[in-house]
Amino acid sequence: MTESILSHVFPNGLVLVGEPMRWLQSAAFTFLVPAGCVYEPEEKGGLSGFTCEMALRGAGARDSRQFILDLDNLGVERNESVANGHTAFGAATLAENLPDTLAIYADLLRRPHLPADQLDAGLAVMLQELRAVEDEPAQKLMIELRRRHYPDPWGRPAHGEQKALEAITIDDIRGHVERRYHPNGAILGVAGRFDWQQLKDQVAALFGDWEARDESPVVERASGVKYEHLHYDSNQTQIGIAYDGVPYRDPDYFKAWGAVGVLSGGSSSRLFTEVRERRGLCYAVYAVYHTLRDRGGVFCYAGTSAERAQETLDVTVAELERLAQGVEESELDRLKARIKSALVMQQESSSARSSAVARDWYHLGKARTLDEIEQLIDALTCDSINAYLAEHPPGDYTIVTLGPGELEVGGVH
Amino acid sequence: MTESILSHVFPNGLVLVGEPMRWLQSAAFTFLVPAGCVYEPEEKGGLSGFTCEMALRGAGARDSRQFILDLDNLGVERNESVANGHTAFGAATLAENLPDTLAIYADLLRRPHLPADQLDAGLAVMLQELRAVEDEPAQKLMIELRRRHYPDPWGRPAHGEQKALEAITIDDIRGHVERRYHPNGAILGVAGRFDWQQLKDQVAALFGDWEARDESPVVERASGVKYEHLHYDSNQTQIGIAYDGVPYRDPDYFKAWGAVGVLSGGSSSRLFTEVRERRGLCYAVYAVYHTLRDRGGVFCYAGTSAERAQETLDVTVAELERLAQGVEESELDRLKARIKSALVMQQESSSARSSAVARDWYHLGKARTLDEIEQLIDALTCDSINAYLAEHPPGDYTIVTLGPGELEVGGVH
Repeated sequence: MTESILSHVFPNGLVLVGEPMRWLQSAAFTFLVPAGCVYEPEEKGGLSGFTCEMALRGAGARDSRQFILDLDNLGVERNESVANGHTAFGAATLAENLPDTLAIYADLLRRPHLPADQLDAGLAVMLQELRAVEDEPAQKLMIELRRRHYPDPWGRPAHGEQKALEAITIDDIRGHVERRYHPNGAILGVAGRFDWQQLKDQVAALFGDWEARDESPVVERASGVKYEHLHYDSNQTQIGIAYDGVPYRDPDYFKAWGAVGVLSGGSSSRLFTEVRERRGLCYAVYAVYHTLRDRGGVFCYAGTSAERAQETLDVTVAELERLAQGVEESELDRLKARIKSALVMQQESSSARSSAVARDWYHLGKARTLDEIEQLIDALTCDSINAYLAEHPPGDYTIVTLGPGELEVGGVH
Repeated sequence: MTESILSHVFPNGLVLVGEPMRWLQSAAFTFLVPAGCVYEPEEKGGLSGFTCEMALRGAGARDSRQFILDLDNLGVERNESVANGHTAFGAATLAENLPDTLAIYADLLRRPHLPADQLDAGLAVMLQELRAVEDEPAQKLMIELRRRHYPDPWGRPAHGEQKALEAITIDDIRGHVERRYHPNGAILGVAGRFDWQQLKDQVAALFGDWEARDESPVVERASGVKYEHLHYDSNQTQIGIAYDGVPYRDPDYFKAWGAVGVLSGGSSSRLFTEVRERRGLCYAVYAVYHTLRDRGGVFCYAGTSAERAQETLDVTVAELERLAQGVEESELDRLKARIKSALVMQQESSSARSSAVARDWYHLGKARTLDEIEQLIDALTCDSINAYLAEHPPGDYTIVTLGPGELEVGGVH
């Protein structure tokens, strides 16, 4: 299905990983910079996102306005996001515009202006974004669940905190770029139509003399709360349940992930069938597998009316408990059919692949082709999944609810 | 860029329109059935969506469970949506699974079980969905804006109303299928890897003997309110502004659309620059062109804090007014670059193309290739757009605000 994946590690630590997709006319890249929110000082929550916002306001020879104009002139579809370990800068455009686009991003990462006179406007945008999250209860709930489930700093929200954002100075932002925008730990994933040798030469010219810096270790603190109710005026109650899973790099990962695929994925999944179709308890119910480099978790969500919230929690937890008894052959067959289809469609998007190969490298120190992933999934059996589940039954839940009233979690262990 | 588009009109009125994309391994279709919410009896708001929910609960030889299992076994990624004129059933899967998937959808459309004993579960899902909308103020605002801007029934929300949903019986749903699921007015768009002759033969076999029915005309009523404030307890205020535009079938459409592209589209657009980047008034601000078959509209959104809401409204309206003075050459150049890039990426998705060719046919009675669309956009000039704007300046706004306090719209005409 895929061609091979190419990679090169530059002497300064920067990783270039590319997947040629010669049948496309577009090219896309995802630049992971090791400036994730786990590296923020504790009292500066949101610093990585604020830095990203400011880095887009002019760089190199271009002022803020020219920077944006030139990206639009190249037809670039941008996206940025902050996660635990990285700030991700993504761009997709016509294949012929890839070199010019990369050159602009070299300015962004290495020579951002970070203009002091735009700090207020940048802060206002950050605060608006934070408030938008506060106004979306489902999103807020999942943020609060992740914060409680992982030991700090791994569960930190990327949007930060209002007081912290307001206290951030332009010097904080310049310092964050200084300390965290560096080539060691950075990964540039490229997918679509491109020439590997030309790409490698250009990346060498743009980033070869970017200096590596010392990495500061992340200090972990214990997570604590197992159940917390957050009051919210609404007719709706949002329910979040999390439990531990192995990370992507673990040999058991696909077994753990396959079990969650049976639980939630496709319209015939257990959660969708039991909670939504049969009982009509929710409009939305799902479980997703989330992975950090060294730990993973399963995060379940159900949004329902306040009067049906207890029943929804009970039914959802019952489905989690039942998972420990194993999955069936027919469930695994459907999962494989769905995933095969999804992999083919992922193969048709240069943006999706550029992000996937960059993230693969972060987790594994190499990138997997879709063929390799398909083989790993084909190799899954009910026996292997069920042996994993017997050893790692869902349990020791972190539960967060958001709505008008607290729920009863006494029976949940 | 694209190959040609093929089409066939069956004697019963069903339109098949196909775009072969031989470089893909997937195939997707979008089936537009003339069961949009404009055809709902006034006191049955939400009937089309409820009918769609029930139609997925078993059809032909398959009961509710088997229906879902078989679609998952085929790796089908489904999506359904209800709009004014149509209910859209979309599916994407591996090319080799297209025939089996189409056969299941023929059952869904022609032989749905509509099981009475699942009405309660279906209703519960519809009510949950409705409440989820109520809990998302930005989405709620835009629904209320559209309802007030278009003459009824064109602005109706697809989600319906709680009381109406609760009063819907299984006979209402069976009657809606009887009256509105028919081949005349239905359009099946297919894109991806398929053989046209085989596809046409299969569609003839599955749908050739589906009987056409009389179309009932839509009765329009006047729209009224120009400004309305909806109270909502929040720190945020949501602002919506709408004004008239020509529909997609109008020869002036691309001029009108180009002007909105300069206003809002890309990071260098006027609204984004003035409202978000310079002043930091909002996290999100945009204007979108929306088109029905016989009328169109521009719908602007800004979400901001209550204390900055008046300024945001004023700045946004000032940008709309300024648009009447015309657009600049450099703005149009950037727009063309962005669109060229977006068209290439659309070309890489079978789902996007299957939906686009089906909707094109609804509006135009033919489907445009991406090459044709690119030529229409290339032909745009500042002079042509500015002549259009001079004749059709933004104005006569419908404004809806949602938040803790009313705004001053006295200066707005």
